[in-house]
Amino acid sequence: MTGAKQAKGPARRADAQRSIAAILEAAVSALSRNPEASVSEIAKAAGVGRVTLYGHFPNRVDLVEAALASAIEKGHAALDSVDLTGDPRQALARLIDSSWLLVNRSRSLLLAAQGVLPPGRIRILHAGPVERVEGLVKRGRDEGVFRSDLSTPWLVGVLHSVMHNAADEINAGRLDSEKAAAFITATVLAAFTPPGSRVPG
Amino acid sequence: MTGAKQAKGPARRADAQRSIAAILEAAVSALSRNPEASVSEIAKAAGVGRVTLYGHFPNRVDLVEAALASAIEKGHAALDSVDLTGDPRQALARLIDSSWLLVNRSRSLLLAAQGVLPPGRIRILHAGPVERVEGLVKRGRDEGVFRSDLSTPWLVGVLHSVMHNAADEINAGRLDSEKAAAFITATVLAAFTPPGSRVPG
Repeated sequence: MTGAKQAKGPARRADAQRSIAAILEAAVSALSRNPEASVSEIAKAAGVGRVTLYGHFPNRVDLVEAALASAIEKGHAALDSVDLTGDPRQALARLIDSSWLLVNRSRSLLLAAQGVLPPGRIRILHAGPVERVEGLVKRGRDEGVFRSDLSTPWLVGVLHSVMHNAADEINAGRLDSEKAAAFITATVLAAFTPPGSRVPG
Repeated sequence: MTGAKQAKGPARRADAQRSIAAILEAAVSALSRNPEASVSEIAKAAGVGRVTLYGHFPNRVDLVEAALASAIEKGHAALDSVDLTGDPRQALARLIDSSWLLVNRSRSLLLAAQGVLPPGRIRILHAGPVERVEGLVKRGRDEGVFRSDLSTPWLVGVLHSVMHNAADEINAGRLDSEKAAAFITATVLAAFTPPGSRVPG
């Protein structure tokens, strides 16, 4: 009564969950080193066969999307510890600093995703982080610190695209990755400043 | 001595150039309506066979890239008429207005390109427009109107990504295309404002 063949439903499901977790971990790790990492390479690193991997992720696009979703989910959880109280500008600077560390670490994975997923899909995968930023932007608008002549989704999109622009600029060799967080913060705080008010800094 | 079979070298080259021009025109037009437009559909609209098309563009990625390059080149030429003299902020607003008309018209083509080309490649295809913006940004920095605590390539990248963000937001149904130029201009002028100075508007 031992061995995989005798495993009952729940045991099989637990096996499948372990496989999926191992595949996602291997995919995030491999794609974070090399955006072109192959499915075979990821299966090997996860210690599963290609057939098992394809059973869970029918093609490379599905796998890349699941890897990005997994990295974003973990990053989003890690950002729970960022203090978002107090001056909205300072809170936003803290959130950008911590978020950038995660985006910078996932630059290669992001590049892999940009190669196979439309921008709208990548934005949807960021629903958690987007919601967090949205809450902070709304509070900043209510307090008159952030502009309210442009819509909240627009301002959130600006932060998202300026951050991803930093990743692209580093990949292109035009930006030093150590300067990125300061550049993003300076740009976004200025972009969010109400017309007629002074840009901080 | 008439007919394609007797055509000499120069005549064959002229034929090939006409085919390429027809294919590019059909590709820009088809992809501007539908980012998923197929190679067969484009060949048919261009009035050439698939074999001829594949002779010039070995795969769909090459064709999409050439179509985007062609649209950007024509747009870049059209922007020659924008007055870039006078107050750099007003000049930038005029350049954004005119550029946005072109980007907005090519939103679907841009989406097709984003689906098959990495962001770095898309940015390289914009070398002409980037150079024009760069000149204006440099002049604005020299005159103290635009910030000089962030690098010129960074500011140009911010404009590029905020403009493409507008295209993504419209595609996602979160932004009214008639508001886009005003949103982009307000955002970019604020982002370019030197720290300590007031955001215009």
